Amino acid sequence: MVTWFGRRPQRNEAPRLSARGALQPTEKVDISSLAPGVQHFLGQAAYCELGEFESLARAVATAPNLAVKEGLSAAAGRTLSKHHGLITEIRRRGHDPATEMAPFVASLDEFRRNTSGADWHELLLSCYLAGGLLEDFFIRLSDGLPRDIGPRVAQLLGENSGTDVLVHELQTAIENDVELGSRLAMWGRRLVGDTLLVARSAMPATDPGTDSTAGPGAAAEARIEPVFTELIAAHTRRMDGLGLTA
Amino acid sequence: MVTWFGRRPQRNEAPRLSARGALQPTEKVDISSLAPGVQHFLGQAAYCELGEFESLARAVATAPNLAVKEGLSAAAGRTLSKHHGLITEIRRRGHDPATEMAPFVASLDEFRRNTSGADWHELLLSCYLAGGLLEDFFIRLSDGLPRDIGPRVAQLLGENSGTDVLVHELQTAIENDVELGSRLAMWGRRLVGDTLLVARSAMPATDPGTDSTAGPGAAAEARIEPVFTELIAAHTRRMDGLGLTA
Repeated sequence: MVTWFGRRPQRNEAPRLSARGALQPTEKVDISSLAPGVQHFLGQAAYCELGEFESLARAVATAPNLAVKEGLSAAAGRTLSKHHGLITEIRRRGHDPATEMAPFVASLDEFRRNTSGADWHELLLSCYLAGGLLEDFFIRLSDGLPRDIGPRVAQLLGENSGTDVLVHELQTAIENDVELGSRLAMWGRRLVGDTLLVARSAMPATDPGTDSTAGPGAAAEARIEPVFTELIAAHTRRMDGLGLTA
Repeated sequence: MVTWFGRRPQRNEAPRLSARGALQPTEKVDISSLAPGVQHFLGQAAYCELGEFESLARAVATAPNLAVKEGLSAAAGRTLSKHHGLITEIRRRGHDPATEMAPFVASLDEFRRNTSGADWHELLLSCYLAGGLLEDFFIRLSDGLPRDIGPRVAQLLGENSGTDVLVHELQTAIENDVELGSRLAMWGRRLVGDTLLVARSAMPATDPGTDSTAGPGAAAEARIEPVFTELIAAHTRRMDGLGLTA
């Protein structure tokens, strides 16, 4: 049984496989062998959090009242802290944050543009659903990082994101406006596709694997699939919690 | 000699005068008697910092490159921390942040709109000059707050705002573009007027004072004037530092 939320216990018996290492068929989804290098991970996760911060800051600026603005500003602050925590990790390893984030700018900026939404509620839903999915994903992926950094990053990303205010605002709006609810349900369904593509791009593009009958990449895909099933399940729970049909 | 930057030493011999208390003519500018009540101060300063954060977040979102974006995000984070520090003070006193900030929303939002600038460099200059002036001002004003809160607020507001990146970006742009420099000089001159009006609104609107020959308010104005002279001097130093004529 794979637990998605929270950290898996550290297991010494699960050696990290190289990208081209022999695939050990197992019931347990081991993401370690699918994890990118540390620098790739940190750069992409850091730029993801920065983008999430920018979206939240835009939600702050356009909030309909002061109490919500205040709550969102706290969420923006928490997201920015996670970003800066990842930046600190990049610097600690002697690298330049801008250089490390640069490879991910074009695709993640396009993702933000595509998921910025037509109004404040769509923006809020994007922040909640895409932010939640990607945070879950990077926490999961951090399992495959070296032990001197993986657990620290998982703890950082797992800290409370202050999204209660987003959930509350969305729930209230959906309860009071059936039409908005069905529009947001459609928006949520569209978001998950775009967001999963971002997550997919954090993993190896192809992996020849060892299963010659299934062709190149099939082995990696087979290992990735359960992870995405988990991500989608968590997404569905978020949608349900808002009263939206996933 | 009044020192504007940094805290004046706490002096027990300077009793806080009520707004209508007898004016003690003195060489030393004592802002204590001009300070608003604690709740007024905290609400206005907190919303000021939130507005400054929103401006910086917009500068982050529109930054021309990743290194600058990263530096600005740190400045935005520091400003947001100050805002949340003031929110904590409001909550500590048993008040609701939204209620306390509400009276200042209309005027400060208009101020932000008027000073948002026509492009990224004007926005940056606004963040630096208006943010700096108002922060100086609230630090100065905090001298008049009760001792169980004034020094703590002054320390909070006096923390490094991370504006080095703004100065560096503006200096570089001004050095490389004479036309931009003269446009920004004009913008800086316009900013200071709008910003001083915000500062003025944090002080008592009128004060009958004790000088009957000069008419109502004259005594208060006489005490306020030196404070504004200091604010303008600090503003001029900031302009000079950028290579702009104030």
